[in-house]
Amino acid sequence: MKNPLIITIGREYGSGGREIGQALAKRLGIAFYDKELITLAAKKSGLSDEFIASNEQRVRSGLMHSLAASSAYHTGFFANQYLPLAENIFIAQSQVIRTIADKESAVIVGRCADYVLEGRENTINVFIHAPIEARVKRIMALHGVDEAAAMKEIARSDKERGNHYFRYTDMKWGKAQNYDICINSALMGIEKTVEVLAQLAQIEERA
Amino acid sequence: MKNPLIITIGREYGSGGREIGQALAKRLGIAFYDKELITLAAKKSGLSDEFIASNEQRVRSGLMHSLAASSAYHTGFFANQYLPLAENIFIAQSQVIRTIADKESAVIVGRCADYVLEGRENTINVFIHAPIEARVKRIMALHGVDEAAAMKEIARSDKERGNHYFRYTDMKWGKAQNYDICINSALMGIEKTVEVLAQLAQIEERA
Repeated sequence: MKNPLIITIGREYGSGGREIGQALAKRLGIAFYDKELITLAAKKSGLSDEFIASNEQRVRSGLMHSLAASSAYHTGFFANQYLPLAENIFIAQSQVIRTIADKESAVIVGRCADYVLEGRENTINVFIHAPIEARVKRIMALHGVDEAAAMKEIARSDKERGNHYFRYTDMKWGKAQNYDICINSALMGIEKTVEVLAQLAQIEERA
Repeated sequence: MKNPLIITIGREYGSGGREIGQALAKRLGIAFYDKELITLAAKKSGLSDEFIASNEQRVRSGLMHSLAASSAYHTGFFANQYLPLAENIFIAQSQVIRTIADKESAVIVGRCADYVLEGRENTINVFIHAPIEARVKRIMALHGVDEAAAMKEIARSDKERGNHYFRYTDMKWGKAQNYDICINSALMGIEKTVEVLAQLAQIEERA
């Protein structure tokens, strides 16, 4: 028997990648993981959800120093107390991702899941992106902010995601060759993109 | 009326991108351009097919100097005799690509067609890639060469294509965000990849 189908989705902020992942999971009748992963990982490592949520993508050169000075660093429960907090979070999340992949078919958004599951059979790695104009429009509508605020938020998030991905995988985020399929969600819109991915998943499942 | 549908395909050497392009054009009943472009461009600029074929992707730092010293540089017919030969070839090819896009629906493989047609409506930009193992296998079978020779050929061609693309577009070749869709042709194989792209083209045509 084949192992469960896992679809990982990396995405640019404002590209609708998360919404596409949710709709895709629903369409295929499989599980969906995103922030849930944080919760699961938090439970595993004993850290609070809020602390992980606020730190897990803030991979900056100064982070390790500020963490070393923070009380959370000294009071948290660690898989390995000699590793910095961010590394412990990444390790805990990776364990959660592997556990999911062993037990059920799922769509997993973000968290370098493509890298964590590298070499696994029956895994499709997807990257969703969109031109900046389309993303700005989407963030303005979703968050009720003006163009300048949307632009700022997009630049900040893309940078964080890129840094996070590069730090843990040593690979460039958004490099086509790292994925099985990359789609500009603005080309066909969210719904049609889901359709294409669902067809692709079904082809892969039949193979 | 919408302008003709153009599908541009950039591809890694050995990924089957050209074969995919041909099959896709046939399936959609539209024109296909690849080396034909060279011929057309050659006729336009008055340069021989062979000369263009041997030079058009050899964009190296030393090229301009060797060209300046070569007799071809002094005897060719140029759109602009003050520009180096490689630039004249690129300009002539770009004119050909624009002429095609004005008159008929087509699949155009390579030649930075995505960049040449940037901003054009009803254009889908595709990038085809595959893991190195799959490409080596394909080149070995197609050209009847051993693994080492296939590897060498792939490395040389990817480097040339990447350099050529970067030189004329100032953008990174194979960066997901530059394309509408990027596919690992080894995921589903050539035939299924053509199917997905054909469906995508039909969705775009109906939009």
